[in-house]
Amino acid sequence: MPSTTATISPAAAISLVANEALRAAERTAVSSSEQLDALADLLLDARRVFVGAAGRSGIALRMTAMRLTHLGLEVHIVGDVTTPAIGPSDVLLTASGSGTTESVVRTAQKAADAGARIGAITTAIASPLADLADVVVVVPAAQKLDRTAAASDQYAGSLFEQVVVLLGDGLFHALWQRQGSSADDLWPRHSNLE
Amino acid sequence: MPSTTATISPAAAISLVANEALRAAERTAVSSSEQLDALADLLLDARRVFVGAAGRSGIALRMTAMRLTHLGLEVHIVGDVTTPAIGPSDVLLTASGSGTTESVVRTAQKAADAGARIGAITTAIASPLADLADVVVVVPAAQKLDRTAAASDQYAGSLFEQVVVLLGDGLFHALWQRQGSSADDLWPRHSNLE
Amino acid sequence: MPSTTATISPAAAISLVANEALRAAERTAVSSSEQLDALADLLLDARRVFVGAAGRSGIALRMTAMRLTHLGLEVHIVGDVTTPAIGPSDVLLTASGSGTTESVVRTAQKAADAGARIGAITTAIASPLADLADVVVVVPAAQKLDRTAAASDQYAGSLFEQVVVLLGDGLFHALWQRQGSSADDLWPRHSNLE
Amino acid sequence: MPSTTATISPAAAISLVANEALRAAERTAVSSSEQLDALADLLLDARRVFVGAAGRSGIALRMTAMRLTHLGLEVHIVGDVTTPAIGPSDVLLTASGSGTTESVVRTAQKAADAGARIGAITTAIASPLADLADVVVVVPAAQKLDRTAAASDQYAGSLFEQVVVLLGDGLFHALWQRQGSSADDLWPRHSNLE
Repeated sequence: MPSTTATISPAAAISLVANEALRAAERTAVSSSEQLDALADLLLDARRVFVGAAGRSGIALRMTAMRLTHLGLEVHIVGDVTTPAIGPSDVLLTASGSGTTESVVRTAQKAADAGARIGAITTAIASPLADLADVVVVVPAAQKLDRTAAASDQYAGSLFEQVVVLLGDGLFHALWQRQGSSADDLWPRHSNLE
Repeated sequence: MPSTTATISPAAAISLVANEALRAAERTAVSSSEQLDALADLLLDARRVFVGAAGRSGIALRMTAMRLTHLGLEVHIVGDVTTPAIGPSDVLLTASGSGTTESVVRTAQKAADAGARIGAITTAIASPLADLADVVVVVPAAQKLDRTAAASDQYAGSLFEQVVVLLGDGLFHALWQRQGSSADDLWPRHSNLE
Repeated sequence: MPSTTATISPAAAISLVANEALRAAERTAVSSSEQLDALADLLLDARRVFVGAAGRSGIALRMTAMRLTHLGLEVHIVGDVTTPAIGPSDVLLTASGSGTTESVVRTAQKAADAGARIGAITTAIASPLADLADVVVVVPAAQKLDRTAAASDQYAGSLFEQVVVLLGDGLFHALWQRQGSSADDLWPRHSNLE
Repeated sequence: MPSTTATISPAAAISLVANEALRAAERTAVSSSEQLDALADLLLDARRVFVGAAGRSGIALRMTAMRLTHLGLEVHIVGDVTTPAIGPSDVLLTASGSGTTESVVRTAQKAADAGARIGAITTAIASPLADLADVVVVVPAAQKLDRTAAASDQYAGSLFEQVVVLLGDGLFHALWQRQGSSADDLWPRHSNLE
């Protein structure tokens, strides 16, 4: 977070954001390589994947959820009108920068109580969310609440949320390649009513 | 899009994704620097900002919309229950990789008919959406429908959608700095009911 | 629609609304009895049920969609992040007071093109939507656009939308009874993550 | 709830549902007449109206929220991407059959802590939600969790949720008449981008 409020052009800001995102994504990929493998397995082995988080992390995971649908998985968004009850053999995919977001921890607790497995993305390995999760991917990015942190020049959890997007798309890419299907195989699964 | 279906680890895929995203974001920042300035002005001068797009581009723009709300702008998502009618002095912020997505072009046409101004992100400067827009930011990324393109190894419009996320967060960062407000100024605008 | 703007107490207005809704629902039940049987069959025979409409009709149908999920059907909301492509053996359940709502007619056309069957609720048997539908339930209520109509004292399509709610819950009730399941059978299907 | 699983035609079920809804709505109008007046005042005096509830009650209130937007009020749905922080002079409009729904009580508590006023619809005058609310409208309908109740032949909270719809539309009708505006005044406020 800048100590001064010197202005920056949008172009320069985009470069700043994209470079921070790349660096944090690369660091996550290196340091959590095995956990990412485990998360990929968790998703592929799931009967159904439930996806949900709070705020912008939740929006970011919706991008991932749509791609998992294109992959042919049965995916549900927590809170959607038609989302069924979670149960054993299901997986909850969630994210919280701090690992302490009340609603996310509560959802994870309910998923665990129902016998589901949990994959979580967070910056905090020592957190209630990480404690509940079967697989934890740790992102070395500033937490949302850490508003004085030096880890990022960006506001609040922005960097974390960007990494959730990139990480979700990286996971999708790896699962897609593993599946051995072509783009033409996925295309017919795209929504065709809009 | 890979010619072979050689598997790739999630970690390697995340690196691939993040590097593609950085490169495309940087190229956009350089080549559309003035248009990004104009888009920033368009948003700040708007009475209200309406945000909407189809599929994953629409999800990506929701991340931007939430940050614009934190900035103190009045923002509405196209299709939300409480979204009012758009009119003069309002701005529609939208995105379509191909610039031809039916629902997006239709929405842009309606916004233009209502006297609103339009900011659009697309890969195609020669497209119906670009024709309708007051400010066009061109992203040098593969189009969604260009399923054989060499521009990206990723599926469909993934790269474009990642750039929309980074570009939106870059815009926010620049607007925030220009506003001269601190993180503590924005924090009280975050939703406090969840 | 009142010719004068004489005030009315909320209590009196609720009575007015509820009486209009009952009368229109009863008239629909009587005059469309066979079509309602056909709609019930359509839903039960569907591989998957896709639900969508515009504005308040769309919200009303979401209430129905949630109950169909509780019944054990696979249900998707048009436009939701995880909604797959519709195809043969699937059913689109939709509603439009006028039967001409652009987005609804377009969605119905796409569903028909994809080989899906369509169940539609409308006030207009002679309408583009009715023409596309396999089963049409006609509600004798004022149309949204018929702003001078004498059919209802309420605003716009309010009466139609209320009937969509009652009709959806009536359909659910009949399907539930036909299924022979108890409340305790449905309960475990309620979302358990919120 | 039926003791037997005798089948019932959709037409008969719609009649059953509509008659239950009318009766419960009428009873609410009579017994809560003054509270409904107070709720109307609460909404009109609010700087902004925040609307939210769980499950089908939440969907029902979205129908109300859209109409309040048409009336010219500033309305936000709890959990929407662009929903700002609630504060003093704002109102939370919510509903819970049992008055104990965890997420609803939590939201109401947060609204109260932020200095907002609360209007609540519930079947239970003695409940955590009613305790938190400034205005409570009591609906004499079966609670969702009261799965053996004789108050309704319908499943779970269906009757309550139908009454929320009718009550919301009755409130809107009364506010509209009080405002003295015509249908043509409201029409331009309808969303024009879809």
